[in-house]
Amino acid sequence: MPITINCDMGEAYGLYRFGDDAALMPFAHLANVACGFHAGDPGAMRRTVRLAKRHGAKVGAHPGFPDVQGFGRRAMVMDRDEVDDMVTYQVGALKGFLDAEGLPLNHIKPHGALFGAALRDRGVAEGIARAATRFGVPVLGLAGTLQEEVYGAHGLTFIPEYYIDLDYTAEGGLIITREHAAKDPVEAARRAVRVARDGVLTTMDGRERPVKATCFCLHSDTPNAAVLAEAVHAALAPWFAGGSESVS
Amino acid sequence: MPITINCDMGEAYGLYRFGDDAALMPFAHLANVACGFHAGDPGAMRRTVRLAKRHGAKVGAHPGFPDVQGFGRRAMVMDRDEVDDMVTYQVGALKGFLDAEGLPLNHIKPHGALFGAALRDRGVAEGIARAATRFGVPVLGLAGTLQEEVYGAHGLTFIPEYYIDLDYTAEGGLIITREHAAKDPVEAARRAVRVARDGVLTTMDGRERPVKATCFCLHSDTPNAAVLAEAVHAALAPWFAGGSESVS
Amino acid sequence: MPITINCDMGEAYGLYRFGDDAALMPFAHLANVACGFHAGDPGAMRRTVRLAKRHGAKVGAHPGFPDVQGFGRRAMVMDRDEVDDMVTYQVGALKGFLDAEGLPLNHIKPHGALFGAALRDRGVAEGIARAATRFGVPVLGLAGTLQEEVYGAHGLTFIPEYYIDLDYTAEGGLIITREHAAKDPVEAARRAVRVARDGVLTTMDGRERPVKATCFCLHSDTPNAAVLAEAVHAALAPWFAGGSESVS
Amino acid sequence: MPITINCDMGEAYGLYRFGDDAALMPFAHLANVACGFHAGDPGAMRRTVRLAKRHGAKVGAHPGFPDVQGFGRRAMVMDRDEVDDMVTYQVGALKGFLDAEGLPLNHIKPHGALFGAALRDRGVAEGIARAATRFGVPVLGLAGTLQEEVYGAHGLTFIPEYYIDLDYTAEGGLIITREHAAKDPVEAARRAVRVARDGVLTTMDGRERPVKATCFCLHSDTPNAAVLAEAVHAALAPWFAGGSESVS
Repeated sequence: MPITINCDMGEAYGLYRFGDDAALMPFAHLANVACGFHAGDPGAMRRTVRLAKRHGAKVGAHPGFPDVQGFGRRAMVMDRDEVDDMVTYQVGALKGFLDAEGLPLNHIKPHGALFGAALRDRGVAEGIARAATRFGVPVLGLAGTLQEEVYGAHGLTFIPEYYIDLDYTAEGGLIITREHAAKDPVEAARRAVRVARDGVLTTMDGRERPVKATCFCLHSDTPNAAVLAEAVHAALAPWFAGGSESVS
Repeated sequence: MPITINCDMGEAYGLYRFGDDAALMPFAHLANVACGFHAGDPGAMRRTVRLAKRHGAKVGAHPGFPDVQGFGRRAMVMDRDEVDDMVTYQVGALKGFLDAEGLPLNHIKPHGALFGAALRDRGVAEGIARAATRFGVPVLGLAGTLQEEVYGAHGLTFIPEYYIDLDYTAEGGLIITREHAAKDPVEAARRAVRVARDGVLTTMDGRERPVKATCFCLHSDTPNAAVLAEAVHAALAPWFAGGSESVS
Repeated sequence: MPITINCDMGEAYGLYRFGDDAALMPFAHLANVACGFHAGDPGAMRRTVRLAKRHGAKVGAHPGFPDVQGFGRRAMVMDRDEVDDMVTYQVGALKGFLDAEGLPLNHIKPHGALFGAALRDRGVAEGIARAATRFGVPVLGLAGTLQEEVYGAHGLTFIPEYYIDLDYTAEGGLIITREHAAKDPVEAARRAVRVARDGVLTTMDGRERPVKATCFCLHSDTPNAAVLAEAVHAALAPWFAGGSESVS
Repeated sequence: MPITINCDMGEAYGLYRFGDDAALMPFAHLANVACGFHAGDPGAMRRTVRLAKRHGAKVGAHPGFPDVQGFGRRAMVMDRDEVDDMVTYQVGALKGFLDAEGLPLNHIKPHGALFGAALRDRGVAEGIARAATRFGVPVLGLAGTLQEEVYGAHGLTFIPEYYIDLDYTAEGGLIITREHAAKDPVEAARRAVRVARDGVLTTMDGRERPVKATCFCLHSDTPNAAVLAEAVHAALAPWFAGGSESVS
């Protein structure tokens, strides 16, 4: 499976702007577009879909918990059906903008605390899986977790991720933070190559652990996201489907 | 053009319930489903779409201003693009639930203050028209107004309404209220027949005025909505496409 | 300590009405007024404060998680400072309406999932305690729990509750549900007297367990809340501070 | 009446930051703190109140329409009582944080489209006046308008403003925009002195018109707000109550 880069995009809200999507988009194969619940008002969604279209990035939905103040990074307790309904609503809304531009929905990637809940709570993972099954698209997530198990059991294509701008515990677990810190681009690119080429990630305490990941994620609110994106994109180019020219 | 009855539906929100959709649905040819901004959380949307499916009612989107507290009955100032984006978002979200049930989107009917704004503000009417054009569905509204003019200029099919449970001024203008009062079902049915058969409406002060209307609207929050629906449905049956058996 | 009855009130939102506050208020010594986050828009808050004033009920704040759709009955993860800030905001807002009526703030009672979180999460209980300390009022809660421990450690007056319309597990734990079922008023009154007179509650499986409670809670959204309130009020009257005439 | 500078502050929302309050606060005699409806979550409110306290700025409430997406700059139609309730709620919430810091509420200044509505709609101005009367504080606004008339008729102290970073029409009317442009600090300071010393403002087309203003407003979201604040503060210092040392 070829390597791709995915970025969370369109996380503006009204006059509030977030991340430099225009700078990031040239390096993203997949754009995960915020769907209004944690970020991304309808105008931001339309602008982001059009930006992705201009750059040839494939667009997926990035649904989150209904919590603009918490940016969807505060867990909420919802049952399977609530999650299914909530994801269906948000993905449907994004499809309205995709249809308008003649673009297909490419994938679904849950955001923040919803992503985290799907690692621990089977009902949440099943709610996401049910929504994704009806839309007929792959879901991004972490390999070897409840996410992969549940999405797989629903017959969904699972796309395993590695997070360029987050840290991993000694056990290989992802540390999801509310605010992200800048990363050294040289080191980030080096680590990304290790993942792509060798299937090995580096934990916070410097150990190495096996990892299965084909899609490399970068958050638009990481302070030096664009610099990281350029560095990692350049380093991973040999593993892209069409080589370094696959995205522009 | 055959006569139809349309009802605003799914205007619940969380534990808050509103209107007796189950009692109304058998009498509705068209169900206008609230899309989450003025009412209608994702769970209510799914339930309402399924209820409409069981009764064979056609489902349209009922987008409104983002104001649950005001039930979308307080005007907000938005420009054309904001309205277009906001309507696209809400209609897209509803389509997510329709796609899940294998139902097509049948029409769009703006709600409350958004409907009212489209009578006075060309930008608002154009925003609605642009969204409806992309979804390729008819729009409901008032004949002889800016709505009909703008929707027509966009090449949209316009379905003219008569409001069973609202009053009309001496000039034939519709009085959009925040809360609706019960109506006498016998008188309402008599007036509805006058509209369907003779194209004449009765104003608040008892005068008659010409009116063009093929779709008869009833609000689910009118106190005796189900009784009104049954009475008007029975009275209008001769003008339905398939006669009185067309909806069950 | 004399026995009192407290009721959650003002849980309307815009056109959505909830519970029959006017019927309940005569039986409530303490009215817990929703503060806008889970229910209770500003207009509902003012009306409820005035209703309480007319009936001589003491008014407390009933802050909840920011989730109108979930009615504050879905847990959210917040840290101590977020809870403190959120409770301070809501209680302050209620004080605006109390000041306008010349009424003091009497107490704070967290709502729904926030109440539940304060049973399990020390940070949440501390956030509530910090806010309550600054406002200088007692807090309602469950005796023998983290709530009592943390509120007590902050030097707050703790008012222990018994829930008239909820069930208790075999271990004496409270079962907090999203929607409440009607209860038999005769049985409810009998159980309330057992608590007031003997300090004993009856669990779901019919066992008895010791309980410390001086304040008897009733939810306005329990289907037969007013009937329950009247029955329990009559049965508990001997234990009220001024006897059965203490509230009218 | 001595000259003062007021700044809109605390207009962050969750992870979204807005304006450089720390840079502006040293130049503000009065801080208008956003109250959560158009901006300013509870955490931002507490931080802003504390920042004002450290710098000795007096704190007023900056209530707005409930529209985070529109930043309170889209007009909504509300009647007098709705405005009164909404303003009471927001000002009360801010008082919760002021009480916690031992600070008094100094004034009320409506935000954005609510400010604008109070120029045209008597019910809106009266709703604001009723709330302000109960809190017993002055209101900021534009002299010679419906605001001054209505606030004055309620016996409120009216503090007339001049807007440093907005433009005035040829007739002297204020142009309230959704996004503000940077201004030349030298020219802004020159114009401010003309207002303070001579009671004359300069319109967009370069004409001069008489103006009554003692309080000079600067928005935190104007791109070069801190530079403007420093320049205008230095130029106006001779007219401050205690001279240039009055605020630090």
